[in-house]
Amino acid sequence: MAPSSDNREHFADLLSRRVDERESQLVLGLDPDPMALWPSSAQTHGDGSAAERAAAAVLSHCCALIDAVAPACVAIKPQLACFERLGAPGWTALAGVVEHAKAHGLLVIADGKRGDVPVSAQAYAQALLAQTPTPFGAVKGLEADLCTVNPLMGKDSMEPFVALARANRRGVLALVRTSNEGAKDIEDLKLADGRPMWERLALMIGELGVEGVGQSGLSDVGAVLGATAPAHLARARELMPHAVFLLPGVGAQGGTVESLAAAFSAGRAGGLITASRSIAGAHLLATQDPPDAARAEAERLRAAAWGLC
Amino acid sequence: MAPSSDNREHFADLLSRRVDERESQLVLGLDPDPMALWPSSAQTHGDGSAAERAAAAVLSHCCALIDAVAPACVAIKPQLACFERLGAPGWTALAGVVEHAKAHGLLVIADGKRGDVPVSAQAYAQALLAQTPTPFGAVKGLEADLCTVNPLMGKDSMEPFVALARANRRGVLALVRTSNEGAKDIEDLKLADGRPMWERLALMIGELGVEGVGQSGLSDVGAVLGATAPAHLARARELMPHAVFLLPGVGAQGGTVESLAAAFSAGRAGGLITASRSIAGAHLLATQDPPDAARAEAERLRAAAWGLC
Repeated sequence: MAPSSDNREHFADLLSRRVDERESQLVLGLDPDPMALWPSSAQTHGDGSAAERAAAAVLSHCCALIDAVAPACVAIKPQLACFERLGAPGWTALAGVVEHAKAHGLLVIADGKRGDVPVSAQAYAQALLAQTPTPFGAVKGLEADLCTVNPLMGKDSMEPFVALARANRRGVLALVRTSNEGAKDIEDLKLADGRPMWERLALMIGELGVEGVGQSGLSDVGAVLGATAPAHLARARELMPHAVFLLPGVGAQGGTVESLAAAFSAGRAGGLITASRSIAGAHLLATQDPPDAARAEAERLRAAAWGLC
Repeated sequence: MAPSSDNREHFADLLSRRVDERESQLVLGLDPDPMALWPSSAQTHGDGSAAERAAAAVLSHCCALIDAVAPACVAIKPQLACFERLGAPGWTALAGVVEHAKAHGLLVIADGKRGDVPVSAQAYAQALLAQTPTPFGAVKGLEADLCTVNPLMGKDSMEPFVALARANRRGVLALVRTSNEGAKDIEDLKLADGRPMWERLALMIGELGVEGVGQSGLSDVGAVLGATAPAHLARARELMPHAVFLLPGVGAQGGTVESLAAAFSAGRAGGLITASRSIAGAHLLATQDPPDAARAEAERLRAAAWGLC
């Protein structure tokens, strides 16, 4: 196991403990569209710029959603694009969302799918998981517990994320086989050895995680596997026996919780199920208020997943 | 050619015109490390937080660099990670850098290597190339002329970038074969048809650009091809006859301008050569002040590239 700069718990052990304590593997995805916020948040917010007012509304919406569903969840997963599009006020709102989630005992997965040459990958890891040294003192990053990364550029583009995550007792989740229709275009390409390309991504991610396995048997390097392709999960588990699987695509994208049982063969924290629109938009299909509808849908998803393992 | 919402010039035509006017295909990469700024910028900046002071120093450094080398360049390429790690003040500094570059007549390439499921890809495109509708009015994005994208997730993850770029007369540059050592791990994998995987990326990018070819013969969908693997350029040009090639890796990463001639077979704007550390750090290898050393190195690179085509 890699050394740590302090006595904090190994990330995967922390995750396992939180999953057990909360009896939940559910991750609340936050991808706020300023034009589709809960009515209670989509009101006038001060007299600042459009970006400042929209960011305040987005923060209000995300906090209300967290307040409604936190007891059913183990983590939040903010989609960085939705904050980035509001500029500096959006980044401030994102920091506020992270703080609010942590106050509820939730872990934070920064979903940015970053990936770059090593020197830039290190800068992203500083931004999301660690801190940046400056002549004016260290600048704290977002302090997420996990971030998603894109492994197209290969092992050296992933190593700075893994190194900084490990040193700071945090984790990384790499794209392996995603939930979108386009996953077939590149990720599913057949290699010369007859296997699909995503299996090579899985092997690389598995190798990067070998040194980061905690007492729970899970590693600080995990994988993103779309819940829309459950047939891949058993094979992915063979290739990455210690990886935490983040499973997007339940709900709005067509995946079901019941098809994901293979993810949990590595333990209850071996699979994290993320849902966004199906929770935030549950009231559109029900007669309840947004918070009540979201709470009911989150609890339904939590119970369905917990019942699998 | 796709319709545009206004009468602005097609992006690739604008790029071609600027390249001709400035007699330059050189792109100034900006990846500021707060611990390695020019001495004139690395001083006390007000009494704000460490993030605010570091962001002010980074902005000062980038503006000084732009002032020194703008006449030799056609564009800047800020590395978003370096601004993101300074939080909201970093994003404000990035907006300031973009504004300063535009005042010098330079184009802006937002280097974020974003890529995500379609709804999130759209949010990134709004953030970098367009604007976001909100109940409080439209929020302007960064208004870069180009952004880099990561095509691992397939065609549907690229389409929102292409659509918003085209509608706003801007462009997209997709990773195809990158300049880092790890490019061999995934991008060079041999497919069942015997070709390397990056050629499939090139074909996909070429197809996405077919509808976006301007009068210059160049498309609004281009490709990132590491200058460290010039042997690939001729093949890449066959697969993407209309693409603008962004060529990182000259200088600090070991590539040379002279090896890139194949890129320019599509025209003078067919290849954009980007250099970062070799320009900003030129004074470390010379007896000149940072601005004079940077200016001399940028002019050397500009002239070398211009002489190739």
